[in-house]
Amino acid sequence: MSDVLVPETRVLAVASHVAYGHVGNTMAGFVMQSLGCEVAALNTVNFSNHTGYRQFKGTRATAQEITDLYQGLCQSNLTDFDVMLSGYAPSAAAVEAVGAIGIDLQKKAESKPGSFFWVLDPVMGDQGRLYVNDDVVPAYKKIIDHADLILPNQFEAEVLSGIKITSLATLAEAITAIHKIYSVPHVIITSVQLPGSATVESSPSSSQNFLTIIGSTTRSNGTPRLFQVDVPALDCFFSGTGDMFAALTVARLREAVVNAGDDLLHTRSWVSPDDVPANELPLAQSTIKVLSSMHSVLERTMEARDAELAKETSEPCGATSPEEQQKREHLRQTKAAEVRLVRNTKLLREPLTQFEVQVLRKEDVAIDRC
Amino acid sequence: MSDVLVPETRVLAVASHVAYGHVGNTMAGFVMQSLGCEVAALNTVNFSNHTGYRQFKGTRATAQEITDLYQGLCQSNLTDFDVMLSGYAPSAAAVEAVGAIGIDLQKKAESKPGSFFWVLDPVMGDQGRLYVNDDVVPAYKKIIDHADLILPNQFEAEVLSGIKITSLATLAEAITAIHKIYSVPHVIITSVQLPGSATVESSPSSSQNFLTIIGSTTRSNGTPRLFQVDVPALDCFFSGTGDMFAALTVARLREAVVNAGDDLLHTRSWVSPDDVPANELPLAQSTIKVLSSMHSVLERTMEARDAELAKETSEPCGATSPEEQQKREHLRQTKAAEVRLVRNTKLLREPLTQFEVQVLRKEDVAIDRC
Repeated sequence: MSDVLVPETRVLAVASHVAYGHVGNTMAGFVMQSLGCEVAALNTVNFSNHTGYRQFKGTRATAQEITDLYQGLCQSNLTDFDVMLSGYAPSAAAVEAVGAIGIDLQKKAESKPGSFFWVLDPVMGDQGRLYVNDDVVPAYKKIIDHADLILPNQFEAEVLSGIKITSLATLAEAITAIHKIYSVPHVIITSVQLPGSATVESSPSSSQNFLTIIGSTTRSNGTPRLFQVDVPALDCFFSGTGDMFAALTVARLREAVVNAGDDLLHTRSWVSPDDVPANELPLAQSTIKVLSSMHSVLERTMEARDAELAKETSEPCGATSPEEQQKREHLRQTKAAEVRLVRNTKLLREPLTQFEVQVLRKEDVAIDRC
Repeated sequence: MSDVLVPETRVLAVASHVAYGHVGNTMAGFVMQSLGCEVAALNTVNFSNHTGYRQFKGTRATAQEITDLYQGLCQSNLTDFDVMLSGYAPSAAAVEAVGAIGIDLQKKAESKPGSFFWVLDPVMGDQGRLYVNDDVVPAYKKIIDHADLILPNQFEAEVLSGIKITSLATLAEAITAIHKIYSVPHVIITSVQLPGSATVESSPSSSQNFLTIIGSTTRSNGTPRLFQVDVPALDCFFSGTGDMFAALTVARLREAVVNAGDDLLHTRSWVSPDDVPANELPLAQSTIKVLSSMHSVLERTMEARDAELAKETSEPCGATSPEEQQKREHLRQTKAAEVRLVRNTKLLREPLTQFEVQVLRKEDVAIDRC
């Protein structure tokens, strides 16, 4: 087989299912499978489409239903997972049920350090607001100390750390706090847009916006090893990119850890020795591959979206109200922006672009702080 | 992109979901996606694992839940499907709900012949017995005349045609009857084992069993064009192979029809002109590609299963009863036989073996009948 696949990895993916489009498990499952991971998808909701359409039908799983499905796996000895990826859960009780699964899998793997790794995406909100019930926040705070890697966005990192992120300095503070409060050894804060600092001139005629991704793996004394990657921002809103990031990270991080050798793979939580610098961490190396695949797929998605929107205009209907017209146009635009996954799996398997990863040093943070 | 993908195809896949392993949509969805199809998976059950394990947990969707999910797609204009693939539905009412979806999609596509095609797998039973409630049979009989292609196994073909299949002659009779009773233009009967006729000597020391696959597309006068493909049988029971066959057929049939040109793609039900012989039908050409991919993947699966079973034996437990030991062994064997899909997608995209397709003529049937 000439396919470029990551080492064999068995993943339990706990997140939402949508019939149409790609978010939650419907994104993460296929992404990990495309890279060669064996994925068991335990679905926490079953919707017709993602909520970005502003309307959907379907059902949410209760905490009991989530627990039952896991018990089904247990009773038939189907729990030999290397990694668990947990994403959206529809209630505080569901978050607790997912937490109990992660803790149980961890317990089963206790005698073999490194044989189980939990990637937790604390899906709570974005852009300054919660989109879950208030009681979901403490539910997450209770389980995060069991996770090996968490992937909050900027807002979620603020909620978890209690620190408002306005600069590289406060970003570094937030990560340091998360390491400390939750004893979580790996953190990546996905897509941060910092005022001012993240714009550079890419050509004489246009300025290009960048997204900053910051990650860290703790040292043995609990201090962070911070790295930073900047990627060009695309002028389009896509749904499911957080799930895509998480799924690619599962596959690429395990690949990097396997490549680093048996010592690391059999180390609890895959924490590299203290002498490994931030930019050489498996987490950093995996992140640049992840971002490369994402950037290429999203570029293709934007091209396809533009072509689709240019091609078919909403049929003008004299009889419909302006509100109805606007709603139709929103549906059309949302559909056109669905991530183009299935025709672009080669970009997942073989990342093209090479982004740079930089060590984020105290000096940088200090300068930024001024 | 150098990936070998089928032409862009949007599929609505209505079947079961299992967290662990590959059957129903959990098989068909990934298979079609791997070939480049955009798949919307509407799940009719949500189980921990397939029923071959003899135990599972999870929930079945009600007819209302199935209808709701489809209504969710309708209200957001997400129903531009080229193909619907419908498989297992957990009750007669659910079969009716799925039927209503197929009929509605057909109606939406009425003004554009060939723009929507319904592949129906009438999942009712196998090996001489029903594994659905009795009332599911008449529910299927009511909707099949709307399908473009149906994929019964030998037992289901007997149930639908009322003809006991014991020879090539009765097989041909059953297909002719199905065409006639249900006005369904395409039929494939998957995996028929006929007494005696299907064994040949493959080497001096061993005899090799073959499976026979028979298909047909009607002529304009309703008579069948029968073709036959024989493939070596593998000595292992796999779950989900029917779903794999159906999924590959969706992708490969549409590819063959697109390659046949606009005339056929814009012909109602993709029925080739009468002068196309049975072995040159898109359905026949697609079937040999489908069987090639399946044979290769299942060969790899058998190798992997054998390696897994040789490696880890059930731990001997003095304290457990013989029944418990037997149950554990069954679970172990069933798990080991899960189809190895994710590491073998190249075999789906690029079939290697070339099986022969033969026209099944009246003479052959007559000789067989003696």
